Amino acid sequence: MIPITDLARSIGINQDHLSLYGNDKAKVSLAALDAARARRPKNGKLILVSAITPTPAGEGKTVTSIGLAQGIKKNGRSAALALRQPSMGPVFGRKGGAAGGGLSTVQPAREINLHFTGDFHAITSAHNLLAAVIDNQLHFKQTRLAPEGVLWKRVLDCNDRALRSIRTGVDSATERAGGFDITAASEIMAVLCLSESLADLRARIDRLVVGFTAEGEPVRASEFRVTGAMCALLRDALKPNLVQTAEGVPAFVHGGPFANIAHGCNSALATRMALAHADYVVTECGFAFDLGGEKFIDIKCRQTGLAPDAIVLVATIRALKMHGGVALADLEKPDVAALTRGLENLAAHLDAARSFGRPVTVAINRFPADTPEEFAVVREFCAANGTGCALSDVFARGGEGGVELANAVVESIAAAEKTLSPLEFVYADSMPVREKIGAIARRIYGADGVDFLPEAEHRLALFETAGFGGLPVCMAKTQNSISDDEKKLGRPRGFRITVRDFELAAGAGFIVALTGRMMRMPALPRVPSAEKIDVSPDGEITGISGA
Amino acid sequence: MIPITDLARSIGINQDHLSLYGNDKAKVSLAALDAARARRPKNGKLILVSAITPTPAGEGKTVTSIGLAQGIKKNGRSAALALRQPSMGPVFGRKGGAAGGGLSTVQPAREINLHFTGDFHAITSAHNLLAAVIDNQLHFKQTRLAPEGVLWKRVLDCNDRALRSIRTGVDSATERAGGFDITAASEIMAVLCLSESLADLRARIDRLVVGFTAEGEPVRASEFRVTGAMCALLRDALKPNLVQTAEGVPAFVHGGPFANIAHGCNSALATRMALAHADYVVTECGFAFDLGGEKFIDIKCRQTGLAPDAIVLVATIRALKMHGGVALADLEKPDVAALTRGLENLAAHLDAARSFGRPVTVAINRFPADTPEEFAVVREFCAANGTGCALSDVFARGGEGGVELANAVVESIAAAEKTLSPLEFVYADSMPVREKIGAIARRIYGADGVDFLPEAEHRLALFETAGFGGLPVCMAKTQNSISDDEKKLGRPRGFRITVRDFELAAGAGFIVALTGRMMRMPALPRVPSAEKIDVSPDGEITGISGA
Repeated sequence: MIPITDLARSIGINQDHLSLYGNDKAKVSLAALDAARARRPKNGKLILVSAITPTPAGEGKTVTSIGLAQGIKKNGRSAALALRQPSMGPVFGRKGGAAGGGLSTVQPAREINLHFTGDFHAITSAHNLLAAVIDNQLHFKQTRLAPEGVLWKRVLDCNDRALRSIRTGVDSATERAGGFDITAASEIMAVLCLSESLADLRARIDRLVVGFTAEGEPVRASEFRVTGAMCALLRDALKPNLVQTAEGVPAFVHGGPFANIAHGCNSALATRMALAHADYVVTECGFAFDLGGEKFIDIKCRQTGLAPDAIVLVATIRALKMHGGVALADLEKPDVAALTRGLENLAAHLDAARSFGRPVTVAINRFPADTPEEFAVVREFCAANGTGCALSDVFARGGEGGVELANAVVESIAAAEKTLSPLEFVYADSMPVREKIGAIARRIYGADGVDFLPEAEHRLALFETAGFGGLPVCMAKTQNSISDDEKKLGRPRGFRITVRDFELAAGAGFIVALTGRMMRMPALPRVPSAEKIDVSPDGEITGISGA
Repeated sequence: MIPITDLARSIGINQDHLSLYGNDKAKVSLAALDAARARRPKNGKLILVSAITPTPAGEGKTVTSIGLAQGIKKNGRSAALALRQPSMGPVFGRKGGAAGGGLSTVQPAREINLHFTGDFHAITSAHNLLAAVIDNQLHFKQTRLAPEGVLWKRVLDCNDRALRSIRTGVDSATERAGGFDITAASEIMAVLCLSESLADLRARIDRLVVGFTAEGEPVRASEFRVTGAMCALLRDALKPNLVQTAEGVPAFVHGGPFANIAHGCNSALATRMALAHADYVVTECGFAFDLGGEKFIDIKCRQTGLAPDAIVLVATIRALKMHGGVALADLEKPDVAALTRGLENLAAHLDAARSFGRPVTVAINRFPADTPEEFAVVREFCAANGTGCALSDVFARGGEGGVELANAVVESIAAAEKTLSPLEFVYADSMPVREKIGAIARRIYGADGVDFLPEAEHRLALFETAGFGGLPVCMAKTQNSISDDEKKLGRPRGFRITVRDFELAAGAGFIVALTGRMMRMPALPRVPSAEKIDVSPDGEITGISGA
C-alpha cells in the first residue's frame, strides 16, 4: 500500500491538509477543497453506480464501483471513489464487512469496517448528547416539550434487538417510551452527509425538529442550547476520510446513512473532494435504482447541485434469474428462459435511470456459475434497448476485470458530454407532498397510484401545517421489490403504493414517507458474524470480509 | 508544541512504534515497551499523587501531577506522566474538561477531552456488543442464563439520567429491567486498565461474569462466543496514548476507570510505558488517599507488581479550612484556627500513606486567596510529623511553580531508595472478604468495624461459593469523607462502615464492596457545561477547560 501522505500528494493534497490516522488513513480538511478548486477549476466527471433489485446477497455494487475505478486507472486515467463507510452493526451482524471483496477492496478493510476514524462514534455521541439534554430539560421542567411529544430517540452502532423499544427513566416523573436506532439511521448522519461546511452543519442541527408540542408546534434542537457542543463533537467527523483501493485508487470513504429511511449516499463533501481531485469519480447509492438512484437525484443532487454524468446499473445473472422465477437455491443452474423473463426488472430500472437524460451502462457483475449464453442474452437486450453493456469481473481480476466497463462508461460520457441537459428532478419543491410521492410512484415504480393510511394523513397534516410541505420526500420502501410489496419480483404492474406514516427530518431536509415495515435498529441473526471475528496475539484481525 | 514524532524520538520511541492521530497524538505499540527494556533495563521511579479529602471543586491532583512533572523537567531530569483520560460525560456535564489547567495542562486538551484516540468509544462498542449478544441468545434461547439473571448492563459515555433504569425489549418475550452505566464504569474499562497484553485482555474478558444461573452458577462472557470480536474492537484501545504537557513533558494518557466502583487509575501499560522511557514518572489515583491510594496499592500494585517510590498528598488551604468547619462560601477568608483544626484530615491520610513505607511529601496546591500565615501552619505541621512539604504553584506558573515540590520529591526518593522495603498490602489474598474489608476500614479509614446488610451477606455468599473469595476488594465509598458518611469531615472517629451490597468484577479481578449510594451513571446538572462548549466556523473549539 502507498503511504497515505504519498497517495494524497499524488492527487495534489499536501500534508497541511491531512490529519493522519496511522499510515494508511487520513482526514482531509475542507480547506483542501478550496485549494484544489483554485488549482484545477474543472471538476471531474461523476459516475453513479446503482443496481437492479437485488437478491438477499446483494448485486455487488460496492465491489463493482471499486473495480470500475481501478479499471479507469488501468486505462491511464485519473480516478477516485466516493463511498459510504460501513456500519459496525451489520459488520458484527449478518454482513461481516462492507469494503468490497476479492481484488476490488478499499484498504485497510479491517479498520474501515471497525472504528475507522471514529465518525460513527462522533455521530453517536452528538446524537445522544442531544437526547440526554432533552430528558434533562424534561427533568428540570425547562422545555415546552412534554415527555410524550419527544420524537428524538437514541442511537448505537450495534445491532441490538432489545433496544428497539424501551422505557426510559423507569419509576421517575419523566418515565416514557423510547428506543434506540442504529447510528446509520440517525438524522445526524443524514445531516453530516448533506452538509457543505461546519456552518451548514450548525444550521441544520439548529433546525432539527426533535418533537412537537401538544398544540402541534415543532420544537427544534436549537432550543436545547447544545448545537455548539454537538458541532464540536462532529468537527472532525465532517472532514472526509481518504484511503485507497487495493490497486492504489484514492477513495474518499465518508458517511453511511441508511438507504431506506435516509438518502443512503456518502457525504456531499466526499463527493466534492473526489471531483476536485480526479477526472473520473465513481460513487454509489443505496439498494436498487428505484430507491437509491431516485434519492441520489431528488435529494442529494437537489440539495447540492451535483449531477451524475453517467449511470451504471449493476446486474447479476443470478438476480435476473430470480426475477424470472428461479428459487434462491437454484440460482447457480443455467436457465436462459428464466433469465430472459427476469430482464423485465432490469428494463424497469433502465427506464427510470434513462429518464434523467444520462448515459446508462449495464454492468454484469460476473459470478463463477454464469455462462456465456446468459451473458449474450443480457448483451442483446441492452443492444436492443440502445444502452451500453459490459462484463465486470472485478472481484476475481481487480481493475483488469473492470477495463471493459471502464471503457464503456468513459466513452458514454464523452459521447453524451456535448448534449447533456440540466438534471430534471422527478418533482418540484413546490408540489404538495402527496403529489411528489405520486410522481415518484408512477414514474420510478410504475405504480398506478398512492394510498395514504389515516395515521399518514394525520402526520402529514401536522408537518404541512408546521410549514414543512416544501421539503423533498425520502421514500422508505422495501429494497426487494420495485413495488412496496417485497414479494413482487420482476417488474410489478397494476399495483398501488401505501404510505402508512411520515417522519420529519427537518435538519437533513426531507420528509420520510414510510411504506411497509422499516427497521431502524437491525437485529443480530442466530449466528452473528461477531462469532467469526478475532484478533491474533500480535494484533492481526481476522473474519472481516474484504481484508 | 513539539511534533509528536519528535517528542517520541526524544525518549527513544521510534516511528515504527507509533500510530499517529494527527500531529499531536499517537498510540504507542506494546512492542515499544520491549524495545525500551532492552535498551534501558532500569525502570524510572514512580511517584504516586493522591490527595486529602477534597472540596467539591477537587484538590487539583491532575494539575499538580502535571506541574510536578514539569518541575522535574525544569530541574534537568527526565520526567514523564501516566494519567487517566477524561470521560465525555463529565466534560459535557459538570466538569467542562479534565486535562489540567492554567500553565499545567496536557495538550491538545480539547481533543483529549473529546474523542481523543477513540478508546472510550472502543470500550463502549465492545461492552455493548456483548450486551446485544446476551439479549440475542436470550431471544434465540441459546443461553442457560435467564433474563432476570443478567447482570451485564449497557454503557454510554454520556451523562444521561433517563438511562439509569430502563426496560428493554418492551412487549417482547425477553422484556426485562436494564440500564446504562457511563463508559468509565464499564468493567471493560477496568479490564483494559489492568491488562498487560492482548492475550491478558482476552483472558480477562473470557472470565468476566455477566450473570448467574438460578442455581448460583456464574455465567462467563466466554459462553457468548464474542471475546475475539470484542478484542478486535479493543486492539488499538489497548495501546497507550502519547501526548505532551504544555511544557513538553511526555504524557501517557490512557484509560479512565471510575474511581469509586473501579480502581480509578490509568492503565498499567501506560504506567509501564512511562517507567520504561523516563527516570521519574508521575501518576495519579482517584479521589483522596483513603479511596484512590489504597486501591492503587491493593489492586493495581498487587495485580501488576508495580510499586510507588514516593507518594505526594495534595492539599489545599481551602479544603483544610473546610475540614476545620468553614462553610464553602467562606473558604477565601483567612482562618488559621479552622485551618489548624482541619489538619486532622491531612493527618489521617498521611498516617495511611506513610504506613506503606514510602516517603510522603505534602504538596500545598496554591490558590490566590491563600496567605503566608496559612502556609506556615501546614509547613510546621509537616515538619513536626517528619514529612516533606512544598508549595506548588503550577496552575499560575507551570513547571517553574513546581520546582520546589519536584526537588522535595526527588530528594525524598534518593533518601529512601537504599532502605525501601517491598510494598506490603493491607490484606492478603487468602483472607476472607469480610476480613479484607475490616483491615481496610480499620487501617485506612480509622473505623471501629464493618457491618454487612442482609443483601450484602447474601451476595457475598453467592460470590464466595462460586469461588471468588480470593479476589482483592474494591471499596465503593463516598469521596467526601474518610468514613462512609459524606457529612463527616476532618478525621472521623468512633464510626463503623456499612456494606450494603457487593458486585463482582471477575474480569478486572476484584469484588466491589458498596457502601452508601454510588451512581454508575451521572446526571446532567441544570446548566450543563455542554451549553458553553462551541466551535468556530474555522474549527476552533471553545469552552473546554485546559485548552
